[in-house]
Formats: sequence, C-alpha cells, structure tokens
Amino acid sequence: MSDALARRIADHLFSREGTAGAWGLMIEEVRIGYARVRMTIRHEMANGHGTVHGGMIFALADSAFAYACNSRNIATVAGGASILFLSPARIGENLIAEAREDALAGRSGSYSVAVRTADGRAVAQFQGLSRSIGGALIDEQEN
Amino acid sequence: MSDALARRIADHLFSREGTAGAWGLMIEEVRIGYARVRMTIRHEMANGHGTVHGGMIFALADSAFAYACNSRNIATVAGGASILFLSPARIGENLIAEAREDALAGRSGSYSVAVRTADGRAVAQFQGLSRSIGGALIDEQEN
Amino acid sequence: MSDALARRIADHLFSREGTAGAWGLMIEEVRIGYARVRMTIRHEMANGHGTVHGGMIFALADSAFAYACNSRNIATVAGGASILFLSPARIGENLIAEAREDALAGRSGSYSVAVRTADGRAVAQFQGLSRSIGGALIDEQEN
Amino acid sequence: MSDALARRIADHLFSREGTAGAWGLMIEEVRIGYARVRMTIRHEMANGHGTVHGGMIFALADSAFAYACNSRNIATVAGGASILFLSPARIGENLIAEAREDALAGRSGSYSVAVRTADGRAVAQFQGLSRSIGGALIDEQEN
Repeated sequence: MSDALARRIADHLFSREGTAGAWGLMIEEVRIGYARVRMTIRHEMANGHGTVHGGMIFALADSAFAYACNSRNIATVAGGASILFLSPARIGENLIAEAREDALAGRSGSYSVAVRTADGRAVAQFQGLSRSIGGALIDEQEN
Repeated sequence: MSDALARRIADHLFSREGTAGAWGLMIEEVRIGYARVRMTIRHEMANGHGTVHGGMIFALADSAFAYACNSRNIATVAGGASILFLSPARIGENLIAEAREDALAGRSGSYSVAVRTADGRAVAQFQGLSRSIGGALIDEQEN
Repeated sequence: MSDALARRIADHLFSREGTAGAWGLMIEEVRIGYARVRMTIRHEMANGHGTVHGGMIFALADSAFAYACNSRNIATVAGGASILFLSPARIGENLIAEAREDALAGRSGSYSVAVRTADGRAVAQFQGLSRSIGGALIDEQEN
Repeated sequence: MSDALARRIADHLFSREGTAGAWGLMIEEVRIGYARVRMTIRHEMANGHGTVHGGMIFALADSAFAYACNSRNIATVAGGASILFLSPARIGENLIAEAREDALAGRSGSYSVAVRTADGRAVAQFQGLSRSIGGALIDEQEN
C-alpha cells in the first residue's frame, strides 16, 4: 500500500466517472487517506446570483472524499455527509477541495474536506462518513 | 403570500440558475414551505459504477430545499446541510426530491428533503439549515 | 410486530439505561417508527446563560431516536446524527422530542426528531442515521 | 488576544455551567481556536449495553467546541453540528475531545472535534458550526 497506488486508484475512479469530466475536476494530489482536487466554477454550476450552487461545492468535496477514502484499495462508499457553507464563490474562481482522514474504526471512517478558493478563502467545510464494502478497486500488481 | 407566489418565485430562481438547465431539473410543485423537483440520472451524473454520484443527489435535494425556503419571498440561503445515502440509483432512473419545512425560528429554518426514485425507493434523506438574508426575490404585484 | 410491542421495547431499554433516569426522561408515546419523549431542563443541564446546553438537547433527541429506531425489535444503533439549534430554552422549561421514521433501506434508516418546548416553540431539529445490527431486544412471546 | 486569555475564558464558562460539574469535565488545554477536554464515563452516562450514550459523546464534543469557538473573547454560539459514531466506549473509560478550528468566515466558523479514548481509539468525530453573536465574555484587563 503506497501513495503511488493511492494515486493510481484515484485516476482509475476518475476515468470511469461521468462526473469528473463533466465537472472539469483536476486531481492535484492523492496519498493514503488524502486527496486534493480542483474545479473551476462555470456558468452551469452557478445559481441565479452568479455564485456557485451549494450542490456543486458538495459535489467537489464529495469527489475528494471518494478519492481519499478509496486510497487503501478497498472499495468504500459514502454513508452520509454534512457540509457548512462559509462564503460564496463566483463564476471563474477556482475551488480546491482538500480531504483528510480523521479516523478509521472497523468498516467506518470519518473524513474532513476543506473547500477553499485558490487564494485561500474558506468556502465550505465538509465531513463525510465512509463505509468500506470490500473488494479491491485495481490490481496492485498491474504494470 | 400564497402558493401561487411560491411557484412564481421558484420559476424565477430556476430561470436564472445555470444549474437547473444543466441538470435537467423539473419543478413539479411548489407551495409555501414545500417543493418537489424531479431529475433524470444521466451518464455525466454517474460514478464509475453507473450509479448516481452522491454530489448529484445532494445537488437535487439542495435545489428543492432552495425553492422551499425561498417560498415566502424573503431571500434565503443555505447555511449548511447533512445527507444520508440510503440506496444507489442508476443511469436512466428518475429521482424526485420532496422538501418540507420542519421549523422556523427567527432568521433560521430547518428543512427535510426526501429523495426517492419514481417508484418510491428511498435514495437519500437531507436536512438543510436556512438563513434568511432579507429582501424580496420578486415583485409581488407584478402581472 | 405492533405498537404495543414498540412501547414494551422502549420501556425495556429505558429501564436499563443509566441516562434515562439521570436525565428524568419520560416516554410519552412509542409506536412503530415513532417515539415522543419529554425532559424538564434542570440547572445541571444548563450552560452559563441559564439556557439548556446543546449537548442535552442532542441527548434528548438521540434518546427519542433510539426508541423509534429500535421499535421493530431488531437491535439498532446510531451511526451518526446532525442537529440544528433553532432557539434557546431555559431552566424549568419542558422539552418534547418527537422522532419519526423518514425512510428505511437495507440495514440503514433515517429518522427526524423535532425538539420543541411544551408550548410548541421549535428548539432544535435532529436527523439520525440508524444501522440495524440484528438480534431481538425482547422476547415477543413474554407475558 | 492570547492563549492565556483563551484559557481564562474557558475557565469562566466552565465555572458558570451546570453541565461541566455534573458531567465531571476536565479542561486539559485551551488555546486560540483549540480546546481539549476530558470526561470519565459513569453509569449515569451509559445506555443499556453499559456503553456510553451517544448523547454524552456529543455533549463532551460540544463542550470542547464551545471552549474553542469562544476563545477569541467574542460570544459565540452553536448553530448546528453533526457527529459520526465510530466505536463504543465503556463505563470507566476516559474520553478526550479535541476541538480544532477549521475555518472562519464572517460571523460563521467551522470546528472539528475528535473524541478518542485515553489510549487513542477513535470513538466519534464531530463537526460544529459556530455563529458569533458579539460581546466580550470576560474583561481582558481583569487581574
């Protein structure tokens, strides 16, 4: 189990998701229990005020959470999540979601995701509950 | 203040959102403190398993929440939300989010949103915290 | 499975809990998927402002949730919860927590709990995630 | 504004709370945006399984959150919180709640609280939303 494997897993998930391409996600870094993902806010992600829809902030955070909680190559899903919205962000701004593992216990895990603009303004804070369902995501021996 | 006004407000918000069109949302019903919204799951809303991404389930629920909490024609935003994921849903399925007002107190409100498939399977349950920021969304006298 | 059994289960749980007596909980009603519990706010439940500590509001809501989600006589635990605090309540006031089942799916369930004063003021709104772990809580044939 | 002041504020809040004494809380450390609080699980904090009631885990976490979010000497309250329960803890065990500030934005703040046993087992993870309401908690010049 390694950070390199964690990145390969995230790239694998990314390549199979319809969402990652549709939302223009960019995976910046993935390590065991950690992921950082970037997204540029576009018009079709905005509400009527020209600011990013809460649903898209959540979607970005949830994606980073998914890459982080699957980083051990054990298939893992989200059981639930909560999010606090701290400040708005506008069309054209870059959002960066940084997911960290808080704790693991049995099949459950807790992850925190901070969503910030590229210049560091706090946009939202997310907490996710993961449940491992078992099974490898990729073949670790694959070249 | 009337249910007809609540619907006009939702249509107004809908028409200005980039997201509503991008996600193919359909507003089925809006009343004071209530909204029901439908979305068909498309490939670009799905994860690598062909099931809807948690971010899109949240986005749908958050949209219904927004129409419900703005239904009194006082501009209102989401302070935060939590969601529980109960069962997956597949590409091609229709999801229906039904938002109800639990309680109002001062400028805060609590809303519950049930997300189900068209045949009634529970997909997720959402709880949102609203904060009214004041100001009317539309002119109530307008013809 | 019946509402009478649901009440017997709640009474059984109540009698074994250290907390129920310590907090002076009173079970008002339990049915399948439903529980209503009352608590009077005492000095030792209050913060420095003479208002009830958020921890005790949660504890009351969580207790009603537990009686509701165990009402089918399948041992069930809380996986997580979220709470919104809507208005303060003072020493001497009675709080009533009313738990309702939103949805069940597999081993998971979602419950909403409204916490109000006896005269109906909204104090908090709670959402709980249950996980059934199996096993009966009481013998259904017992006289 | 200093860590010493943060500690004085927490001690002031603690001395006025009915709960802190009732629950046997011990403040281990408080700094700006940080608090660590300990509690020993007693019979009257336990459910029928002899494990700590979720309400008491929340109450401990919420207390640490309150000391951390009031550490800048601006009166601040909880708007809401979510908690994930990761493993049970038994009567006699010591629980330690460690609250950290994730982000501040305007009058809102997000705090994460990890609850662990004294030997480091993860028991719960909490996320709190704070709202500053203004006004100093203590006189900073006081000797």
